[in-house]
Amino acid sequence: MPELTVGLGERAYPIHIGSGLLSRKELFAATLANINKAVVVTNSTVASHYLTRVQATLERLGVQCQNIILPDGEEYKDWQTLNDIFSALLQGHCERHTPLIALGGGVVGDVAGFAAASYQRGMPLVQLPTTLLAQVDSSVGGKTAINHPLGKNMIGAFYQPRLVVADIDTLTTLPARQLRAGLAEVIKYGLIRDADFFVWLEVHAEELLAQKAEVLCEAIERSCQHKAAVVAADERESGERALLNLGHTFGHAIETGAGYGNWLHGEAVAAGIVMAAQLSAQSGLIAQYDVERIKQLLRRCKLPVEGAAMPPQRYLELMRHDKKVHAGRLNLVLLSSIGNAVVSSYADADVKQIEAAIIACGGSKL
Amino acid sequence: MPELTVGLGERAYPIHIGSGLLSRKELFAATLANINKAVVVTNSTVASHYLTRVQATLERLGVQCQNIILPDGEEYKDWQTLNDIFSALLQGHCERHTPLIALGGGVVGDVAGFAAASYQRGMPLVQLPTTLLAQVDSSVGGKTAINHPLGKNMIGAFYQPRLVVADIDTLTTLPARQLRAGLAEVIKYGLIRDADFFVWLEVHAEELLAQKAEVLCEAIERSCQHKAAVVAADERESGERALLNLGHTFGHAIETGAGYGNWLHGEAVAAGIVMAAQLSAQSGLIAQYDVERIKQLLRRCKLPVEGAAMPPQRYLELMRHDKKVHAGRLNLVLLSSIGNAVVSSYADADVKQIEAAIIACGGSKL
Repeated sequence: MPELTVGLGERAYPIHIGSGLLSRKELFAATLANINKAVVVTNSTVASHYLTRVQATLERLGVQCQNIILPDGEEYKDWQTLNDIFSALLQGHCERHTPLIALGGGVVGDVAGFAAASYQRGMPLVQLPTTLLAQVDSSVGGKTAINHPLGKNMIGAFYQPRLVVADIDTLTTLPARQLRAGLAEVIKYGLIRDADFFVWLEVHAEELLAQKAEVLCEAIERSCQHKAAVVAADERESGERALLNLGHTFGHAIETGAGYGNWLHGEAVAAGIVMAAQLSAQSGLIAQYDVERIKQLLRRCKLPVEGAAMPPQRYLELMRHDKKVHAGRLNLVLLSSIGNAVVSSYADADVKQIEAAIIACGGSKL
Repeated sequence: MPELTVGLGERAYPIHIGSGLLSRKELFAATLANINKAVVVTNSTVASHYLTRVQATLERLGVQCQNIILPDGEEYKDWQTLNDIFSALLQGHCERHTPLIALGGGVVGDVAGFAAASYQRGMPLVQLPTTLLAQVDSSVGGKTAINHPLGKNMIGAFYQPRLVVADIDTLTTLPARQLRAGLAEVIKYGLIRDADFFVWLEVHAEELLAQKAEVLCEAIERSCQHKAAVVAADERESGERALLNLGHTFGHAIETGAGYGNWLHGEAVAAGIVMAAQLSAQSGLIAQYDVERIKQLLRRCKLPVEGAAMPPQRYLELMRHDKKVHAGRLNLVLLSSIGNAVVSSYADADVKQIEAAIIACGGSKL
């Protein structure tokens, strides 16, 4: 069973990846030592599949669970849900030492993670990601957030978990569309840091879609290795960590502009990656052939390669609300090759180039 | 002009204390280098006195201000106010690098500080405390929070400012009752860490109430030295920092139980300090004479020495909602002498002692 560590000094934490892990109490023993109560935050869908399993494992460690079950959906990643969690924690007399266990995908991990960061100024957090996207990306690295009507992930905290357990068995109940969306983030690691991994993905795309266990496990492990290395080097995104945002600024504009829920995050990232690649090609950083190669892999993974049909001006308006603006300039991640990324900074005068890339990738002309 | 440093490695920051500081642009120059826009969060009362002054100073550094003016009062230290700040930041296209400047007392500093901690996962924070309480306590050390209907300061973050500027001129417009409330926190430092300072306060109490500038300045400086030393040793309150909570667990119960706004925080802390001292005497840690000496100084500062007339059971119910509960045990700060504090842990079976201290200090019998 692969075990990785996110190297953050005294806040370092392990990531366990494999099959059957939610039943293995020894993985939780150190984090829950001398604890007799924990809170599990999950959503109604995940609860029906895995809550009993997690609860039984914790009970074997002498830990009683208070369960907080959220409605399922990105539209609930908001103030109201966060406040409901706080009320439940207070009503349950949870203490600042009570561990909060986030069981679910990216939405659960983000909102429960921010609740753990803020309740009594911080309680211990455990991430049990149950979607591919959460296992390869959002459960690792400490980004937590809720959405605001004016922008995605606008309110949140950098707050590291104490433990991440990615049980690949949970992917068996994941809808195929969600699995594919997670692959967009996997492909992203190949594009920004690891040309060999990109080739490996070109070889194994169909096996991944078919959920072949050892292939999935390897993809998750290699993704987490990249994520852990980047986070250890730049926890608060002052430098290298920004490269993980390849496709995300375009993607967030698609998610917000098309209404939360119509596009999955990973789908929007896939289209955003194509836009970023197209802009990279227009700027002479990569060849148009590379863009086609990227689109080819995304298509094989049944991911969109065109964005929402919104005018480029609308894209840019939404992109300016993203967190990647500095001193009025829009910072975008581009590719200098397949396997290497760079940050490029755009003044208002330069946005025509961005608009052209958006139009070339599905944006509407008007 | 005294300048202290809170020693937190690469997150170390200066505290400037003195007269006329809000007009001295050089104090702000390093923090606002290469910045052309900042956000000032304040309340309507403070804005009428000092906002123009701060704005003029920043403009001399080429920094334009977006002002966010909150209603004045502890009852606004809530979700709604926080969300209003986020909306204004988003509407103003604020970036994660835009500095947020909190101009006001403890409420403004706490809510604006938590907004700065959470907006885009953290923007630079400057504290300009305008009350004695904020200058000696809440603006230093990184505790930020909002209240929840079920408990005070329940939602928040540890988030350090980049700069604290305490201009004692702002105390000239502070109501006398607020100044006295701030003295409770000053006296606290003497009680928990510095017997000499306690004696100094016994000598200078009337001069402090009369706002003699050099005496006020010395009291603020000595208080901030203690706060900075404790925070540098224990930023996230895993040990020594808990001693700063002397009187606060009782005090929070008074504030919550009596309704926010009826008691000022410092007034509730004063009564809470007496309860903690009384409990210390009952436990044989200090003499009853010491309790009387503490009450004497508080009385000279025109601070309450009795708590709200609530039954002790109600106190305990509210105290259990405080953040000082661990593994079901209530942790309270007691005095082992004037100048030294210890944490004492109470199981449910031991609460009779606490109830007796509450009744001896103004709690009602029924």
